[in-house]
Amino acid sequence: MYFSRMIAITFLGFGNVNSHLCKAFFNSGNVAVKQIYNHREIELPDYLQEVQLVTQLTDLKKADVYIIGIPDDEIAAFSQRLPEQNGLVVHTSGSVDIQALFPHSSRGIFYPLQTFSRKKEINFKNIPICLEAGDASDLVLLQQLGNCISEKVVEINSEQRAQLHLAAVFVNNFVNHLYAISEEILAEKKLDFDLLKPLIAETASKIEYLNPSEAQTGPAKRNDLNTLQKHVALLENSPYREIYKSLTASIQAIQSH
Amino acid sequence: MYFSRMIAITFLGFGNVNSHLCKAFFNSGNVAVKQIYNHREIELPDYLQEVQLVTQLTDLKKADVYIIGIPDDEIAAFSQRLPEQNGLVVHTSGSVDIQALFPHSSRGIFYPLQTFSRKKEINFKNIPICLEAGDASDLVLLQQLGNCISEKVVEINSEQRAQLHLAAVFVNNFVNHLYAISEEILAEKKLDFDLLKPLIAETASKIEYLNPSEAQTGPAKRNDLNTLQKHVALLENSPYREIYKSLTASIQAIQSH
Repeated sequence: MYFSRMIAITFLGFGNVNSHLCKAFFNSGNVAVKQIYNHREIELPDYLQEVQLVTQLTDLKKADVYIIGIPDDEIAAFSQRLPEQNGLVVHTSGSVDIQALFPHSSRGIFYPLQTFSRKKEINFKNIPICLEAGDASDLVLLQQLGNCISEKVVEINSEQRAQLHLAAVFVNNFVNHLYAISEEILAEKKLDFDLLKPLIAETASKIEYLNPSEAQTGPAKRNDLNTLQKHVALLENSPYREIYKSLTASIQAIQSH
Repeated sequence: MYFSRMIAITFLGFGNVNSHLCKAFFNSGNVAVKQIYNHREIELPDYLQEVQLVTQLTDLKKADVYIIGIPDDEIAAFSQRLPEQNGLVVHTSGSVDIQALFPHSSRGIFYPLQTFSRKKEINFKNIPICLEAGDASDLVLLQQLGNCISEKVVEINSEQRAQLHLAAVFVNNFVNHLYAISEEILAEKKLDFDLLKPLIAETASKIEYLNPSEAQTGPAKRNDLNTLQKHVALLENSPYREIYKSLTASIQAIQSH
């Protein structure tokens, strides 16, 4: 992709999301990292040695886009403290409304729909980048930015984004918790969690060619009361018994539609 | 692997599990498929054209191992009807006790811990094969058989297997149901389920290098009450509100340990 000039980005906060985004933008070659703001001194990775780190918001210089990457519940207050910039101010959160960026006149969302770990490199190419902007020219700028790192750039309004984030909680946070529960269930009988890893991988990859509702199997789906009773008995003193019952009832309710 | 002679196997039932197992054993080259019993006529795949299909249990001939692959709740009754064989009778179920194979004197379990789909070829190499046998020589035979197709052959007693199957329900059936819920949540706002697929894949692959408890993120984990309230409000008229609340409470309970 060709731009008449590089897009200049300043990162506000340098946590999980922003540090991954920064790396991806840097590697794309189409973006200039202007400054990095963090509320306290941090050590920047080697590839950013020529980039200025600032710890005072008053030291910010002009950039095309300012990307806020801080905890969700701090975005609105941070936005109030951030001096008005002659550039587009965006945040990266799935659950925070665009209005939280008030009073900045140019505001938008740049939400990469993925879970990030400090240590693991992320390939953004297939990660949906969900955009929202206050006006059309800002949207174009965010689309250019999104296209630098991903092939899946989509416009999503705040209402849709809230719904998307809710669904993401089910498939990421809740699914991971079910993994944790199963690890605990196995540990009780001295069984290694590794035994379940091929099943976990296959369950996740199945939805590439089957809808989840078509892929559903198991005792709840086939109403195998004998197995369901055995499982509830195994969970007699477990904190996970109610979760077993409610997920089973939910699968059965879909079946009976 | 070298055997003085091929192990002769007869499959009893030819559903999802047995047809995948049969293919894998055939491809290993170390196993002879003796007969296939099914309660009604079926068309066998091309590679089995030389194998006899029988629909009467009285037509069974001598084999080293008889593998029962039928619905869990039919195994005990089927085993009673099966004439006593001069060979090892096993089933492939995660949830059925070895005693269900009474009155056969040589009995065992050959439980591949994976989810199978009719259409998708399975590579057994990394799939745990969980074995149980009534005596030591039968166990050796099952180990030989397991080693033909998998590098993860483990001895698991019936009590452990029940626990393993329970855990498998959490990471397979329940996880898949969470995928189905999220698909429904997205559809309400005309959002495509494909948006979540990279997140689903990453969530599953994360446990390769982090324990699930270490990998836990999200509003419940960080006790982000604002986001939790928004989500519960979004689910106001949803059948999934209670599941959201109980999984959130369960994550929070672990956090507060």
